[in-house]
Amino acid sequence: MQTAAAVADFRTYPKICDLAQVQVQADQLLVQWADGRVSPFHHQWLRDNCPCPECVYSVTREQVLEIVDVDADLSATFARIDQGNLSVEWSGGHRSRYDPGWLRAHAYDDESRAERRAAKPKPRLWDSQLQLPVFDYSAVMEDANALLQWLLALRDGGLTQIRGVPTEPGSLALVARRIAFIRESNFGVLFNVQSKADADSNAYTAFNLPLHSDLPTRELQPGLQLLHCLVNDANGGESIFVDGFAIASALRQEDPEAFQALCEIPVEFRNKDRHSDYRRLAPIIALDAMGDVAEIRMANFLRGPFETSVARMPLLYRAYRRFIGMTREARFRLVKRLNPGELWCFDNRRTLHARNAFDPGSGARHFQGCYIDRDELLSRILVLQR
Amino acid sequence: MQTAAAVADFRTYPKICDLAQVQVQADQLLVQWADGRVSPFHHQWLRDNCPCPECVYSVTREQVLEIVDVDADLSATFARIDQGNLSVEWSGGHRSRYDPGWLRAHAYDDESRAERRAAKPKPRLWDSQLQLPVFDYSAVMEDANALLQWLLALRDGGLTQIRGVPTEPGSLALVARRIAFIRESNFGVLFNVQSKADADSNAYTAFNLPLHSDLPTRELQPGLQLLHCLVNDANGGESIFVDGFAIASALRQEDPEAFQALCEIPVEFRNKDRHSDYRRLAPIIALDAMGDVAEIRMANFLRGPFETSVARMPLLYRAYRRFIGMTREARFRLVKRLNPGELWCFDNRRTLHARNAFDPGSGARHFQGCYIDRDELLSRILVLQR
Repeated sequence: MQTAAAVADFRTYPKICDLAQVQVQADQLLVQWADGRVSPFHHQWLRDNCPCPECVYSVTREQVLEIVDVDADLSATFARIDQGNLSVEWSGGHRSRYDPGWLRAHAYDDESRAERRAAKPKPRLWDSQLQLPVFDYSAVMEDANALLQWLLALRDGGLTQIRGVPTEPGSLALVARRIAFIRESNFGVLFNVQSKADADSNAYTAFNLPLHSDLPTRELQPGLQLLHCLVNDANGGESIFVDGFAIASALRQEDPEAFQALCEIPVEFRNKDRHSDYRRLAPIIALDAMGDVAEIRMANFLRGPFETSVARMPLLYRAYRRFIGMTREARFRLVKRLNPGELWCFDNRRTLHARNAFDPGSGARHFQGCYIDRDELLSRILVLQR
Repeated sequence: MQTAAAVADFRTYPKICDLAQVQVQADQLLVQWADGRVSPFHHQWLRDNCPCPECVYSVTREQVLEIVDVDADLSATFARIDQGNLSVEWSGGHRSRYDPGWLRAHAYDDESRAERRAAKPKPRLWDSQLQLPVFDYSAVMEDANALLQWLLALRDGGLTQIRGVPTEPGSLALVARRIAFIRESNFGVLFNVQSKADADSNAYTAFNLPLHSDLPTRELQPGLQLLHCLVNDANGGESIFVDGFAIASALRQEDPEAFQALCEIPVEFRNKDRHSDYRRLAPIIALDAMGDVAEIRMANFLRGPFETSVARMPLLYRAYRRFIGMTREARFRLVKRLNPGELWCFDNRRTLHARNAFDPGSGARHFQGCYIDRDELLSRILVLQR
């Protein structure tokens, strides 16, 4: 019987603290650490997480054991600290060994869980006074640390700019692929933002576009949007950004009833042309399991008619007007003209974007855009941080 | 002032019923229909949905009016039924005209909303006795109605098979593109399911794979999976399917406490190799706003250690063991060997799939797969139904 302490993962788990003592109880082990913390681990949980090569396939580091194949009343017949590891023998004879760094990182006593929750990255809210985080194209393309700094700024602040990007069409794909593959949509892998006579969205006109997220018409709005300026000779067309999380947070303070309505009442967003008909019903503000704002979904020009009870309709209009009103307040708005070779990259589910109307008669204007999901951003950060 | 009854949409809205009467009240109109139904429409709602060419850009059929630019206390100065349409004049002078088919389709009185809710497609649950819906490749490729029938079977039943698909590598992309573009992942646009020495997932070994959904490690699991058999000369490797919605529904009946735990306690799924590190925390069963089961997220080999309070851990293990136990019950399982030229297409967020271990020494086995999102499926159905 092999009892390797190998970890079913590609991460490393530095030892935070020594194991001091272990005590076998009816359905759990009570582990005491050198710093005094006590972590209970249920027998089922420990057996489920046995890292030995019989339970985890060493090439993929994926589990082959299914816990349902172990008795529900399995118990430890023996447990001790052995060369710093936790060593357990189970009824039935299987043996497991657990690395103290891994064990501490996965302990689920209240203190350990609170510690991990507190260590999670939090969004840094911003307003019109934001010092825009600007990165250099060559650095991001060549240096892993510059790349990581850019991605952390994106994750936590939700709005960044890259300068010095070549102005050949398609260059933004080079930047995107530093993160991962691009997320295709019905507008293509890369989309061209230009004024067109046969526009299939108001985005492809010269109109002003109010503050919005892209593709609120889909179950999952794209996580990141890259928007690259190739040519910008037209009058007007400035980019405008607001931190949707900052607005939601202010609304929560200033008008909790309106905030609640936007969290609870789903709204339909629609994107339709001759070849497609996308519809998605979802609230404008989505909260995560902890009650924190996780997403804003908003594009007035893609919104369908409101549908809620007659009694709640006035509240929904009041809340919606209030939210849109706030996106127009100077305190939240960052206005900036994008120049050729510059590229916006922002969190499309947080940072709402808009553009002023432009005059297509005054000169050419050509932007290219693409999307990447938050999953890719977070994966890339984790790999760079290994 | 133009007052076209044009609809801000590409759909048609047949007239269900004539408008009979309209009455102006303080903040709403009371519309009475010829069949006696009474539908209140708030002034704000009607003004917001004015379909005239000043309010909606006729090329894109997207709204240019923003309701926040209209007074919050706007009211109708005049309303009447005019050539079958509802005609309104607003304080400030703007005039709007509403088509009765459109108005009935968007009325939000309780009766109208209940009627629409009842008309929504519902999943048809199935078990081991399922008569597998099989479609013909040529028909699906050439005939719009055959395509629609296939897509409706997928939407409502979640498991279909297509036969007569060419066995050249890449052929499944032709089938996929009948729906829409393919959703790429870190495993590529098309992925090859073959036993590999340097596997980056247990899917690419010859092991048996327990019942699972693909990419539970992502915020949005792919909606549809296509799995196409090119070569299948190896012993073993039969496909197994269960209706995850049917199992969740049975669990809800048989063990409500376990069902509740799987809806409430988030579980981390992980997919990691040398180049990526995907992690997603979400419950195994997701409910929609109506409390109906909307999604199953499950892959034991990609699951991270459970993390919940010490008090709830035994309940989570009990619930998880029970759910996995049910996926193994004969009453739910459909077992079928896929032959060359056959293709599974199933709802990856509902229909769990598995395969028996196979013997790579006994012959070659080569499947290709790809993903498409539910958004594309639903859009395609809506366009085909126009």
